[in-house]
Amino acid sequence: MKINGRHYRTIWLDNDDPGLVRIIDQRRLPHALVLEDLRTVDDFCRAIKEMHVRGAGLIGATAGFAMYSATLAACGDDCNQFLQQAAAALKATRPTASNLAWAVERQLATLLPLETLAAKQAAAKATAQAIADEDAAACRMIGEHGRELIAAISRRKGGQPVNILTHCNAGWLAFVDYGSATAPIYAAHQAGIPVHVWVDETRPWLQGARLTAWELAGEGVPHTLITDNAGGHLMQHGKVDLVLVGTDRTTRQGDVANKIGTYLKALAAQDNSVPFYVALPSSTFDWHCRDGVREIPIEERSGDEVKFVTGVNHQGLDQEVLVAPAATPAANPGFDVTPARLITALISERGIMKAEEAEILRLYPEQQR
Amino acid sequence: MKINGRHYRTIWLDNDDPGLVRIIDQRRLPHALVLEDLRTVDDFCRAIKEMHVRGAGLIGATAGFAMYSATLAACGDDCNQFLQQAAAALKATRPTASNLAWAVERQLATLLPLETLAAKQAAAKATAQAIADEDAAACRMIGEHGRELIAAISRRKGGQPVNILTHCNAGWLAFVDYGSATAPIYAAHQAGIPVHVWVDETRPWLQGARLTAWELAGEGVPHTLITDNAGGHLMQHGKVDLVLVGTDRTTRQGDVANKIGTYLKALAAQDNSVPFYVALPSSTFDWHCRDGVREIPIEERSGDEVKFVTGVNHQGLDQEVLVAPAATPAANPGFDVTPARLITALISERGIMKAEEAEILRLYPEQQR
Repeated sequence: MKINGRHYRTIWLDNDDPGLVRIIDQRRLPHALVLEDLRTVDDFCRAIKEMHVRGAGLIGATAGFAMYSATLAACGDDCNQFLQQAAAALKATRPTASNLAWAVERQLATLLPLETLAAKQAAAKATAQAIADEDAAACRMIGEHGRELIAAISRRKGGQPVNILTHCNAGWLAFVDYGSATAPIYAAHQAGIPVHVWVDETRPWLQGARLTAWELAGEGVPHTLITDNAGGHLMQHGKVDLVLVGTDRTTRQGDVANKIGTYLKALAAQDNSVPFYVALPSSTFDWHCRDGVREIPIEERSGDEVKFVTGVNHQGLDQEVLVAPAATPAANPGFDVTPARLITALISERGIMKAEEAEILRLYPEQQR
Repeated sequence: MKINGRHYRTIWLDNDDPGLVRIIDQRRLPHALVLEDLRTVDDFCRAIKEMHVRGAGLIGATAGFAMYSATLAACGDDCNQFLQQAAAALKATRPTASNLAWAVERQLATLLPLETLAAKQAAAKATAQAIADEDAAACRMIGEHGRELIAAISRRKGGQPVNILTHCNAGWLAFVDYGSATAPIYAAHQAGIPVHVWVDETRPWLQGARLTAWELAGEGVPHTLITDNAGGHLMQHGKVDLVLVGTDRTTRQGDVANKIGTYLKALAAQDNSVPFYVALPSSTFDWHCRDGVREIPIEERSGDEVKFVTGVNHQGLDQEVLVAPAATPAANPGFDVTPARLITALISERGIMKAEEAEILRLYPEQQR
């Protein structure tokens, strides 16, 4: 998508230096656009763990490029062992998102059987690029499918703006391009369908306030920032036509793990008969997982993310402020699970499906057991 | 309750200067304990509007003292007109809380018929003090009734800590003393019943992080700060035994308007079979109101409260930081309405009652029509 009129992806190989991967350091948005260079597996692990990059698809793409970087650092007889160590380090950075393990395993499956280092390097580069390209293509298709849902509501409202509530950032910054939940919004907006987005600020990391609001402004999509607490009230008063969110891991029965607080919005949507859609590239499916609440590991992050808030002060400088008593203990689960029963439908690059195993397998017959 | 071992109320008449009302400026907590002097009706209006004082009971008590101050400033023939102007200015400061109008009307009903200014002054002072004393007494009784609920859960858990989730600050800082939702917690804690409180931070104003966490620490009650997004996840995993919140306005059928986000917690409690209790002194009932979602006016506050967060920086200085793009539009509804159907029971100073008109009127027979 565009930043100041210039097209960007969230991650790319440098044109001149083939060992260099470049990202947008998302910790600095929206106040500064800072590009960061990644070269070593350590660089990549830190970038994922400390959320220089975040979001289901982008974590996967970053892990793909990380494995390519690993092949550039590997040498000699223990090359496969080195790759497996890199894979383990990458998978340990964030436990909830399934794209991470998926991308790492895809690289390993490709690379381990290859004989020469040169062959591994070439294959790793091609696979990393393919993961990124497929992610962008999947998000574009999600946009096509989802646009029709928004168009139908727009027709029913006689062309009045369609009010869409989203949580966290399942935007192009969370993927390689387009985004998952935002792809239908961008597609509708580009097709001239009037939309307005309620942007949940998404505590504690404020992905909505910092990233989604910035993205939508960049594309000229009307939007209003709200606290995470406000969505239920807006739904009670008919101000939300649909909820559209992403997912970091999707089970075969259609449960989704997404940013903490998503479950509360799904409950409010159900209580007010507001449709609740989840957009996802197929790479977020965890086909081994069925009951999301019981089976999906939920990342516990530092309580300091709750107690300290970062923004810019009146001098325009980054500043961290403490918002609770210094000694207060804080807990910070990063995700929650929305059960399939609360989801109107899933939207993937293959189409729109009910969040039920039989419906999902209709579009994914290769996952039949 | 106690601050550093010394007993405080949230508002009191100065011992030496009978025209002086003192409050704790709650904007400065938890980082600084700043007392503020209020003398004029303008002082009182600003203190309520800009949230130097906040919370259902304390707003009512402050309005009671404000009307006393108005009698000290009034003179001559147009005294009643002056009092009515003061009453109108006070009622306009915050639209959702019913205690505010209730306290002002109670003063007016007492004062307008009195003939002499001296009689009005004496009656206003007595009424203001009575409103404050009754608020504290009501909260103490709520504590007695609610303690039994917590004790019963404690027995069922074999003495394991009872996990209570609360939203916003319905603590002693929101009333004159004890608090509404916190009163049962303090009473249980003082009776030796092990409790642990999940404190919702309560965006945008962070009453939970700033006030409830500070209060609970002052009384030695174990607690953990969480984002507003986290409660549903905790309930899904059996980590919440009951939800206990306050209310700013309660309808005769048992709907409650409370801090924005309360409704989402009530939905999660219902979805996970967690009991959801609302604690209230009788002064928060609005007997003219039936359907809360339709009838209760919801205060719209400035979007800047969402976009800017105030805390202390590493130098210990108050600092405001911007957490979204500067140009982002933001909306900030202050309250939402939790329908009676989601409430297990109401706890007032008269006892515990189902959130149903017939049950409520059983304890309030004088409100039968």
